[in-house]
Amino acid sequence: MSANPDIEESLVLSPRFGADGLVTCVVTDAGSGEVLMVAHMNAEAIGRTVATGEAHYYSRSRKALWKKGASSGHVQRVVEIRVDCDQDAIWLRVEQHGGGACHTGRRSCFYRAIVPGADGAPASLEFRDDERLFDPATVYGSK
Amino acid sequence: MSANPDIEESLVLSPRFGADGLVTCVVTDAGSGEVLMVAHMNAEAIGRTVATGEAHYYSRSRKALWKKGASSGHVQRVVEIRVDCDQDAIWLRVEQHGGGACHTGRRSCFYRAIVPGADGAPASLEFRDDERLFDPATVYGSK
Repeated sequence: MSANPDIEESLVLSPRFGADGLVTCVVTDAGSGEVLMVAHMNAEAIGRTVATGEAHYYSRSRKALWKKGASSGHVQRVVEIRVDCDQDAIWLRVEQHGGGACHTGRRSCFYRAIVPGADGAPASLEFRDDERLFDPATVYGSK
Repeated sequence: MSANPDIEESLVLSPRFGADGLVTCVVTDAGSGEVLMVAHMNAEAIGRTVATGEAHYYSRSRKALWKKGASSGHVQRVVEIRVDCDQDAIWLRVEQHGGGACHTGRRSCFYRAIVPGADGAPASLEFRDDERLFDPATVYGSK
């Protein structure tokens, strides 16, 4: 474990962006504590999220700033923003509008659990929450 | 939003590792729901975590597999492991032994909030939980 008091004990926000200019962002439901999604933020996404109180991310696939809910209407109102010890990860506590945070229509992206295989078989997945709160085809359009 | 049913609806664990061979791992306290830390896992770390029920990660700084608590004794017993829709992030719900998950001695790495600056000033940080549950110098040795 490395200690860096200048970062860890500071009251100055100085995110340690990766080589791609991004930090990891964990998003939880402010009420239930459930992890809704993991996304990424660049400096502009952090700035807009702080300034507007609505979650903005950076889409690595689209290479663009992304306001959550811009196309779906399912915006995330920010209750609190935290930063971790070495300032390379952010935790957003949000109120998720429209029910689901996941593009599959589910409340959380983490709707499956990893379970050990029996008798040496490989690990597999089990659904923990398969309820769809919206129809992705209706919200995002058919593909 | 891209849809990939082969990954999103599958019961086959097939993590989408980045170019560095890692996926992001969010770790929460299974009791309180608090986000304790963000770490990274390679295939071996996932395998050992599933097999042993104790959290293993990959340390990017040390370039090595890392069993949480190996030096501090503060192991994390895994209550549940979830994977996200596109299988590039993992959520571990754990029981944290020894009090703190953070190498600074605090319960969570996310002990500071980002708050907007007044009158156009830059955003800054505020401590939300400054209690140290252990002394890092004692646990990890002085530097």
